[in-house]
Amino acid sequence: MIILAHCNENFNDLQGAYLFAKIRKEQETYKANYPDADIISLGIGDVTQPLVPAVVEAMMKAVAEMGEAETFRGYGPEQGYLFLREAVALHDFKDKGCDVSPDEIFISDGAKCDISNMQEIFATSDIVAIMDPVYPVYVDSNVMAGRSGKFVNGSYEKFEYLPCYEECDFKANLPSHDPMIIYLCSPNNPTGTALNKKELTVWVKYAKQTGSVIFFDAAYEAFITEDIPHSIYEIEGAKEVAIEFHSFSKTAGFTGVRCGYVVVPKELKLETKSGGLISANELWYRRQCTKFNGCSYVVQRGAEAVYTEAGQKQIQKTLGIYRKNALAILAGVKEVGLRASGGINSPYIWVSVPDGMSSWDFFHFLLREAQVICTPGSGFGPCGEGYVRLTAFNTSEKTAMAVKRLKTAVKKYTNKG
Amino acid sequence: MIILAHCNENFNDLQGAYLFAKIRKEQETYKANYPDADIISLGIGDVTQPLVPAVVEAMMKAVAEMGEAETFRGYGPEQGYLFLREAVALHDFKDKGCDVSPDEIFISDGAKCDISNMQEIFATSDIVAIMDPVYPVYVDSNVMAGRSGKFVNGSYEKFEYLPCYEECDFKANLPSHDPMIIYLCSPNNPTGTALNKKELTVWVKYAKQTGSVIFFDAAYEAFITEDIPHSIYEIEGAKEVAIEFHSFSKTAGFTGVRCGYVVVPKELKLETKSGGLISANELWYRRQCTKFNGCSYVVQRGAEAVYTEAGQKQIQKTLGIYRKNALAILAGVKEVGLRASGGINSPYIWVSVPDGMSSWDFFHFLLREAQVICTPGSGFGPCGEGYVRLTAFNTSEKTAMAVKRLKTAVKKYTNKG
Repeated sequence: MIILAHCNENFNDLQGAYLFAKIRKEQETYKANYPDADIISLGIGDVTQPLVPAVVEAMMKAVAEMGEAETFRGYGPEQGYLFLREAVALHDFKDKGCDVSPDEIFISDGAKCDISNMQEIFATSDIVAIMDPVYPVYVDSNVMAGRSGKFVNGSYEKFEYLPCYEECDFKANLPSHDPMIIYLCSPNNPTGTALNKKELTVWVKYAKQTGSVIFFDAAYEAFITEDIPHSIYEIEGAKEVAIEFHSFSKTAGFTGVRCGYVVVPKELKLETKSGGLISANELWYRRQCTKFNGCSYVVQRGAEAVYTEAGQKQIQKTLGIYRKNALAILAGVKEVGLRASGGINSPYIWVSVPDGMSSWDFFHFLLREAQVICTPGSGFGPCGEGYVRLTAFNTSEKTAMAVKRLKTAVKKYTNKG
Repeated sequence: MIILAHCNENFNDLQGAYLFAKIRKEQETYKANYPDADIISLGIGDVTQPLVPAVVEAMMKAVAEMGEAETFRGYGPEQGYLFLREAVALHDFKDKGCDVSPDEIFISDGAKCDISNMQEIFATSDIVAIMDPVYPVYVDSNVMAGRSGKFVNGSYEKFEYLPCYEECDFKANLPSHDPMIIYLCSPNNPTGTALNKKELTVWVKYAKQTGSVIFFDAAYEAFITEDIPHSIYEIEGAKEVAIEFHSFSKTAGFTGVRCGYVVVPKELKLETKSGGLISANELWYRRQCTKFNGCSYVVQRGAEAVYTEAGQKQIQKTLGIYRKNALAILAGVKEVGLRASGGINSPYIWVSVPDGMSSWDFFHFLLREAQVICTPGSGFGPCGEGYVRLTAFNTSEKTAMAVKRLKTAVKKYTNKG
């Protein structure tokens, strides 16, 4: 008898297709049926503004360097070039009063990779807590690793879900089962909720008390406009308990360029079976040396340019466009009687769907009646049912048009009902 | 009591530091002690020739596109852009008589990521066979995943090692324990051995008979000069049993640019616990959608340019330099009485060390006496003891100088002994 190679059975516990791939397919099907339809996407959180001149210039220079023998660079450090790690340490941390050294920063080709791979250095038996609704990558990467258990009645047996309700501004309560890994995203994807210093302090204290580790996803910190922390390391003692993920995707329009970084503080220790302690920083360094070969030199030079004076000024202009879009969407959906949050410190607006519709109903309604793409809230977890996520990343013109169409469609539906 | 988050215990089974990181540290220490030393590296397999003009031009154009609203691109397909997958399918496969469709090709930021991540779609209980000596990434990625068992007397309990002896031209016999995953690298890293059609056919037949899957690492196929297969898919039926890894690193000098691809054929099925079959292509697609966000657009345009007429002509010129270096090293080490193989279809020359020395002894000897860096064979596994690996990737001038110095040092040592 032939014994075939076996699949990773955990993959069979995954639910449906990856959310954004599914939305893309729905969009493509609609486009195939109605080739003339002028679809506007406020769905997938992808940017539309071009790279800023400072980044383009730096990348051009780096490409030119790679074409000359004297300045060509081969393999870079797996952890990323020191020039970029120093720029990150200075501008994203020191300037905000946080003490993060370049040795604690790991440059990657994107936060999605970091955030889905980081769980690898933890025991597969460690219990995971996730908010509900939540960015699907936190869920799926842990399902693949075998931390989820079976999917029963709409949720995974072994996860601790932390429901985020509208009554509580979509903020979760502390866990009750002492999970070892806690995913926290602020400003939040999908709800747009941003935690203030007091709230973050409660989480850091909880992690310290229970010995758990916070995976802090700060991918949207550039959208913060109010006086709240941009980094969890602004909270005292956070370096002992938190790993922080950053991305240039939304900050500087790098979704197609690919660059992010993760901070793994030296203070953060994990327990070994024998009761010893091991440095998470060392484990991650070993993981990256073995399974990653560094981010493209050209890309790292582009990311470095984000921190120059010109770069900062230019990305703020771009971010300003998205911030304005967010406020326009927020105002628009409220105007037609939908409840909405986010949009202030976040590029995401979390919108309640009209009565009598599910998230996917409203997705199809908006596509059909307004040719607008949103992201069904139920794709982010059971508590996301009844909501959709709209994003501020389209152009001003298209966003304004989408809001107008959405308002007309919803008004028509409401008046009918 | 505080229950701390736990580490992945498998990491504790890793042996020492990642080989090439260790070599880099040794080199840095020597450089610190002898700042004037003119060290020449024939160690880490990193290229030195600049990107060819066709690639530079394409990347420049892509960067410019990213700076304009009309041509800016955000998230690309996780699997890679169709323009690149079509170019790969045509030039790397169709032109060689292999039927590989763009849907079976996944573009990544490098073969190291693909080859270390691919094991994720397999059961952690699946038995792994590796050659000895072997590229450490195959070993370490499986140790981290928990497939190795403990390290006892110089080897991991659960791996099936396939020793490659000099008497058999460093070619392995078939496994005897029916492993489910078999790593095969041809032309081989580190020994330089390349398998011919007859030999590859034996492996494909074996895999078919036993239901195992071959991870075929073709990263060095561009160095083949004799009439042997560049792809395992040149062997009939290989698509049912083999996943093939490619890299632009050595082919087109992309070690710092970062691009590779993997072929996961639609014919390849894995067994589920319940005895069903599941498509490896679908599993890998889901894995990539969840944990990867596509390779940089700029980089993919650069890789596409490798396949243009100008690109092909230009990279052949660069490859010619490395091929000439390989022959010079091979001739040089043989001249001073060391046995050596590889170098013909491979950028690697596998060299026996002088009597009375270990691999690391010879590493330190060459560093001290010739300021030349090699890679100790023992770093590739127990059967690598007594050998070192030299690479052809330095410039012609430095390679010639390194060979000269090596010859002088070895002659001096031999005459003394």
